Amino acid sequence: MDETDKSIIEYLQKDGRTSYTEIANDLNVTVATVRNRVQKLIENNILKIVGVVDPFLTGMSTVAMLGLKVRLNKLEDVVDQIVKIPEVRFVAVSTGSFDLFTEIITSSNEELYRILTEELSKIDGIEDTDSSVILRIYKQSYDWGVK
Amino acid sequence: MDETDKSIIEYLQKDGRTSYTEIANDLNVTVATVRNRVQKLIENNILKIVGVVDPFLTGMSTVAMLGLKVRLNKLEDVVDQIVKIPEVRFVAVSTGSFDLFTEIITSSNEELYRILTEELSKIDGIEDTDSSVILRIYKQSYDWGVK
Amino acid sequence: MDETDKSIIEYLQKDGRTSYTEIANDLNVTVATVRNRVQKLIENNILKIVGVVDPFLTGMSTVAMLGLKVRLNKLEDVVDQIVKIPEVRFVAVSTGSFDLFTEIITSSNEELYRILTEELSKIDGIEDTDSSVILRIYKQSYDWGVK
Amino acid sequence: MDETDKSIIEYLQKDGRTSYTEIANDLNVTVATVRNRVQKLIENNILKIVGVVDPFLTGMSTVAMLGLKVRLNKLEDVVDQIVKIPEVRFVAVSTGSFDLFTEIITSSNEELYRILTEELSKIDGIEDTDSSVILRIYKQSYDWGVK
Amino acid sequence: MDETDKSIIEYLQKDGRTSYTEIANDLNVTVATVRNRVQKLIENNILKIVGVVDPFLTGMSTVAMLGLKVRLNKLEDVVDQIVKIPEVRFVAVSTGSFDLFTEIITSSNEELYRILTEELSKIDGIEDTDSSVILRIYKQSYDWGVK
Amino acid sequence: MDETDKSIIEYLQKDGRTSYTEIANDLNVTVATVRNRVQKLIENNILKIVGVVDPFLTGMSTVAMLGLKVRLNKLEDVVDQIVKIPEVRFVAVSTGSFDLFTEIITSSNEELYRILTEELSKIDGIEDTDSSVILRIYKQSYDWGVK
Amino acid sequence: MDETDKSIIEYLQKDGRTSYTEIANDLNVTVATVRNRVQKLIENNILKIVGVVDPFLTGMSTVAMLGLKVRLNKLEDVVDQIVKIPEVRFVAVSTGSFDLFTEIITSSNEELYRILTEELSKIDGIEDTDSSVILRIYKQSYDWGVK
Amino acid sequence: MDETDKSIIEYLQKDGRTSYTEIANDLNVTVATVRNRVQKLIENNILKIVGVVDPFLTGMSTVAMLGLKVRLNKLEDVVDQIVKIPEVRFVAVSTGSFDLFTEIITSSNEELYRILTEELSKIDGIEDTDSSVILRIYKQSYDWGVK
Repeated sequence: MDETDKSIIEYLQKDGRTSYTEIANDLNVTVATVRNRVQKLIENNILKIVGVVDPFLTGMSTVAMLGLKVRLNKLEDVVDQIVKIPEVRFVAVSTGSFDLFTEIITSSNEELYRILTEELSKIDGIEDTDSSVILRIYKQSYDWGVK
Repeated sequence: MDETDKSIIEYLQKDGRTSYTEIANDLNVTVATVRNRVQKLIENNILKIVGVVDPFLTGMSTVAMLGLKVRLNKLEDVVDQIVKIPEVRFVAVSTGSFDLFTEIITSSNEELYRILTEELSKIDGIEDTDSSVILRIYKQSYDWGVK
Repeated sequence: MDETDKSIIEYLQKDGRTSYTEIANDLNVTVATVRNRVQKLIENNILKIVGVVDPFLTGMSTVAMLGLKVRLNKLEDVVDQIVKIPEVRFVAVSTGSFDLFTEIITSSNEELYRILTEELSKIDGIEDTDSSVILRIYKQSYDWGVK
Repeated sequence: MDETDKSIIEYLQKDGRTSYTEIANDLNVTVATVRNRVQKLIENNILKIVGVVDPFLTGMSTVAMLGLKVRLNKLEDVVDQIVKIPEVRFVAVSTGSFDLFTEIITSSNEELYRILTEELSKIDGIEDTDSSVILRIYKQSYDWGVK
Repeated sequence: MDETDKSIIEYLQKDGRTSYTEIANDLNVTVATVRNRVQKLIENNILKIVGVVDPFLTGMSTVAMLGLKVRLNKLEDVVDQIVKIPEVRFVAVSTGSFDLFTEIITSSNEELYRILTEELSKIDGIEDTDSSVILRIYKQSYDWGVK
Repeated sequence: MDETDKSIIEYLQKDGRTSYTEIANDLNVTVATVRNRVQKLIENNILKIVGVVDPFLTGMSTVAMLGLKVRLNKLEDVVDQIVKIPEVRFVAVSTGSFDLFTEIITSSNEELYRILTEELSKIDGIEDTDSSVILRIYKQSYDWGVK
Repeated sequence: MDETDKSIIEYLQKDGRTSYTEIANDLNVTVATVRNRVQKLIENNILKIVGVVDPFLTGMSTVAMLGLKVRLNKLEDVVDQIVKIPEVRFVAVSTGSFDLFTEIITSSNEELYRILTEELSKIDGIEDTDSSVILRIYKQSYDWGVK
Repeated sequence: MDETDKSIIEYLQKDGRTSYTEIANDLNVTVATVRNRVQKLIENNILKIVGVVDPFLTGMSTVAMLGLKVRLNKLEDVVDQIVKIPEVRFVAVSTGSFDLFTEIITSSNEELYRILTEELSKIDGIEDTDSSVILRIYKQSYDWGVK
């Protein structure tokens, strides 16, 4: 990743639909360069260009953060299965008292109940769960720096 | 938000640069309709189209989740100040033992140290912090349903 | 549930023995309407009319709140058995660090001991319990809103 | 409270609208006796006859349990103010790591947010809060024994 | 247990070697009565007359309090075995996050280590332990009221 | 403390009323020696001879263990006041998450409530309390070794 | 260990390369005495003379402290295996809520991830882990007293 | 820091008194080079050569790990004072629920008590402490990699 890549990323972090022509002009490179670079960043899973919605404004009013304790020798299996649950939007290994950290977005508390008791309950190796419900989001930004 | 809005959002959640022509054709509406709808969704803060990068692949290798306990009568002040710290990417009120839930993305553990001891330490009303460092992200998706 | 149902409920939440004639007069409906509506609400498990006693004033001086951690794939079994214990007055699934939340009302600490060690101990799938003893109740109301 | 009181209570715990005539016949006392006893039990705050609704079936879908840590020398003040919040249905002092135990019933997670940040935040002396959201109620009974 | 029993107990709580003659005189009963009563109280495990030493002044400088989480269906077995360890001076079932509460008195931290890793480790059914070391005792009294 | 002291202590730990003659005979010392030694051990607060009752069998049915967090610079003040509360039978500084460890013995949960809300609440410097109620005592011994 | 041993240790705690001649002169013993004493202290594992580096200044920027809960009857096995992991620098049994206390020093958060998920996960008997990342070291001294 | 520095460090991590001649021969550099490099590493606080003793074998039998919660705006002050306490051997800022992580080495539990109640209690800004006592050390190594 060179400086051109980084500059292109910065434009797209601010507005994912910035025209490649505009970026090319600003950076003094060809439009083809911009297009190729973006394509490569996406292929390498470094970059995604996506429409992100505010869950509370689109009726997905139950956003839950879950800490999971997992039997460590089952961690891979647990991850394999948990990432397949569509309502699970985020899965990560973290330090601290929980092994996995996940985010679930659903349309209601009832739906969260269903995922906990019908989906997570089937996954062998989850020892403990701790869930919190997000009541209001004050900031959610996507334009952090790249190094 | 009607069914057309929802369908447009679904296209953009999958690929934020889907051409409006393609969406218009698929939905049997005019390109102008798609463009207007997108513009309105963005103006109402329902939708953002953004380039999202994988922090670990762009050198931002310290991603921390923080739970904060806050004196409740200072909650607004704390939120006002914490959202201004650029490395703080996410701020939300949640149920559970912590009042605020935040995500910080930096390039190193040292930089995380600086934010904790130089930035958060200045904010009056934070009673307690608990931080975890994300070691690997397995899933981060943005295409959840809309209702 | 329409506005008449809601109004009837409000009368009964305040006083469960309000005469149906009084309610009918106030709402400008027939007594039969009130009676039928109440019967249907009860049949659908939406409404119960009950005498509720203050446990501390009737000698049931040990009221305990218990959080239970349960193996998630045994949750249904655990619930099936725990609801059968007469002293267990409340059982619910909740977010947070515990999976089940229960209330037990007994006449003494010794009796609470018996339930913990003789009843709960037989239920397979309970991983952990945390109990608190209620020392004084300041408010217990039943007339919350309906929507 | 004598055996007659206890027997009357048992009838009313099962069905709050049992006719006093029926109770009187069964217990071999006069209807006036039943009526007087009930009246006295109610006046002494030992008994309430109320219509109780299932919050989830009446649209009050956010039921939260809160543990509060309170500066002990402010406990009375905190209790005085917290019992006045209509959505707070239950307030009790308990053993364990929290001093007060409360239940809040609202129609949405947003409304719970408002109560936490606008109502509880004004009460001086609350040091810490821990909240859980009830996702499903399996048992809620009111006919416990009297001694 | 009548008033005479209670009065005798009070004398002995203050000084376990108070002469029975002195107690008898004060209470206006015969010495034989005092002796018989004491004997019965001891036989019924209501009373013990013992020499109690300050562990820190007799070289037993490691006093530890342990909370144990126990598989509830093994509670009896665990108790049976743990009470046999001579250094374990106190075992009780309690509310709260731990099921058993125990006190261990040893002459050194090394000896505490041995009990944890060689004695407790052999007892099947102990799920979790949390230990604290007492650093100084400010009060230890034995003359509480009897009712 | 020499071997004679230790031997005398061992006799009294088993039975606080063992006659000094018996001890003297067994140890081959004079009765005066035993009496003097005991007196000195008591004067130096190394030994107490006391009648100890089982609280549950004498109607003191609420035995609570409390962990207290204390502002460290107020520790002495807190200790000075807390030891004066008669129902507080044990006060010690310990390692772990709590600073002080106390035991309270009362005749009822209501009385425990009174001590928490009327006595402890007056002591400045107590930051947090966590209480557990003992439900059954399986072992309470006083005859630990001396070194 | 006599006074000469202690004095030699004190010199070496301050500077591990202090010449034996210098120590010998100061202590009025022969150089051979110093050399022999040091050798014996090392052979008995009482003393090690080592070069210690600041991990953050040598690129080992992820220092983690881990608390481990271990099935007590597997403690020895767990210890046997965990001490073999080269990045694990410290392993100890402790009081408190964790059974083992360990320190891991690696060059990156990714490497810490690998040790947690590939090395620790293979060790049977670890029930729970809680990890913290050290962000800055303010003091690390090695010259504590000897008694 | 170049490869020569790293190699020198590795020799000294294994044995802090390895002769510079030996190192110079092995690395094919002059003895002066080794001496200068070592001196510079020491001056830059990258390297210390020290005699390290096993506390349990030298009579320092109470080794405690402490987590401290600190008011963040007082962190610097707290650190300034805590590093001056000689028995405090390690002070670091960490993620997790505690802000500071410290190690204290003393000769007895009584001495630990003195440090907690007389030294730490004087430092303004410490909100909470949690201490564990190390009962046995299984591994303590100093020869970790350098990068």
